[in-house]
Amino acid sequence: MINLSIIGSGNVGKHFIGLVQNSENLNLIQWLSRSESSYQKIKTTSNLKNVKKADVYVICVSDKSINEVSKKLNLNNQLIVHTSGINHFNILCNKNRRGVFYPLQTFTMENKPQELEIPMCIETEYNKDMKLLVDLCKYLNLKYYQVDFEKRKILHLAAVFSNNFSNHLYSIAKKITENNNIDFDILKPLIQETANKILFLDPVNAQTGPAVRNDEVTINDHIKLLKTNEYKNLYRIFTQLIRDENKL
Amino acid sequence: MINLSIIGSGNVGKHFIGLVQNSENLNLIQWLSRSESSYQKIKTTSNLKNVKKADVYVICVSDKSINEVSKKLNLNNQLIVHTSGINHFNILCNKNRRGVFYPLQTFTMENKPQELEIPMCIETEYNKDMKLLVDLCKYLNLKYYQVDFEKRKILHLAAVFSNNFSNHLYSIAKKITENNNIDFDILKPLIQETANKILFLDPVNAQTGPAVRNDEVTINDHIKLLKTNEYKNLYRIFTQLIRDENKL
Repeated sequence: MINLSIIGSGNVGKHFIGLVQNSENLNLIQWLSRSESSYQKIKTTSNLKNVKKADVYVICVSDKSINEVSKKLNLNNQLIVHTSGINHFNILCNKNRRGVFYPLQTFTMENKPQELEIPMCIETEYNKDMKLLVDLCKYLNLKYYQVDFEKRKILHLAAVFSNNFSNHLYSIAKKITENNNIDFDILKPLIQETANKILFLDPVNAQTGPAVRNDEVTINDHIKLLKTNEYKNLYRIFTQLIRDENKL
Repeated sequence: MINLSIIGSGNVGKHFIGLVQNSENLNLIQWLSRSESSYQKIKTTSNLKNVKKADVYVICVSDKSINEVSKKLNLNNQLIVHTSGINHFNILCNKNRRGVFYPLQTFTMENKPQELEIPMCIETEYNKDMKLLVDLCKYLNLKYYQVDFEKRKILHLAAVFSNNFSNHLYSIAKKITENNNIDFDILKPLIQETANKILFLDPVNAQTGPAVRNDEVTINDHIKLLKTNEYKNLYRIFTQLIRDENKL
């Protein structure tokens, strides 16, 4: 049994609350938050100084508030972890033993905690604390990876390319269709399948489209159809990168 | 009951064969292909001149072969459709009534015909032929959209952005992780969820990451971590596009 407290009531905090409720081996001591909140019939405690004894404290607040919140907790020599992808554990106040409990996933209120696969990147200041984070992942039924700060930064960078930038491409596709009175919904099954394909195919081998076919006529047609220089430029850059990758 | 023939034994032809086998209202007259092939216990007929009478002929060959194959078919005044996203129906030989039967989806041998949602974009040279294509979609249990050549070109362009270019971003993410001895698999659940989010959220609202947070420190860290000028450039362009979209 692990006694834990969660600090923060945003999407990450709420997801962990949902998962903790489903685990028989976890005991939620407190859910702390600067603002009053509730979720799944659990209410937050708003006084951060009134913090009770637990085995681990999981800070789920925005990057810029981690340091401040860690200082306010009235604790010494306890295991405290943050959930940020881009911060070293030493952003946490050094009164305590520190660690990282980073979920490499995107959370919205619409997705259900139990339905989401969440790879956990874990790191601790002291080796002796690693076992507790491993057990915590097991009790939450989440796959875990021991990832140090340098590797976590690389993962975060790769996530920006594959997710933040992909999402912006979806946004461009939506603009292109809607500017031409076409329902963006028509594209959704294809977007899903393109993301599914990488589960069983290397993305280099899964590449399709005019660039990898070296179809100059279609490429020129597409560039003509685009209305802004920014999108024309982006189209040319991707086409060249795909050609380079395939040595065309 | 619709009598149909399929011409071509690539991924698209094989997917249609799989779907036709599951429909009680479709009768496969012939499966024609220049090369010998078989799938689901059905063999292709290799002599294109020996084509039998059907209600509709669906040409599933590569873009550059559509015209040539349509000329070789020993048919007159029959309904012939191609499955290309980027060609007008008049690429088909004008001895016959022409149309388009374009599946807006990506096919690989690994995906199962029945599990894939395939939005069909349909168009016919003569109005009287539209009903047959609509019925064909219904019998194949596929959603259909009447889309003319101009709109089909726009859809194809939007698909290049949201799928071909996204796939290349997955490829870049794989390179970044593998160059740093990190298993690309860690990123797969996040890639899936990013594609799933657009089912219930506008991609503009689903945008996350350092660009939309205007997090200059992380943006500069990421650009420093990238090894090539091409990737640094791409990172800067996306960051600016996301900032512009969010008026940052």
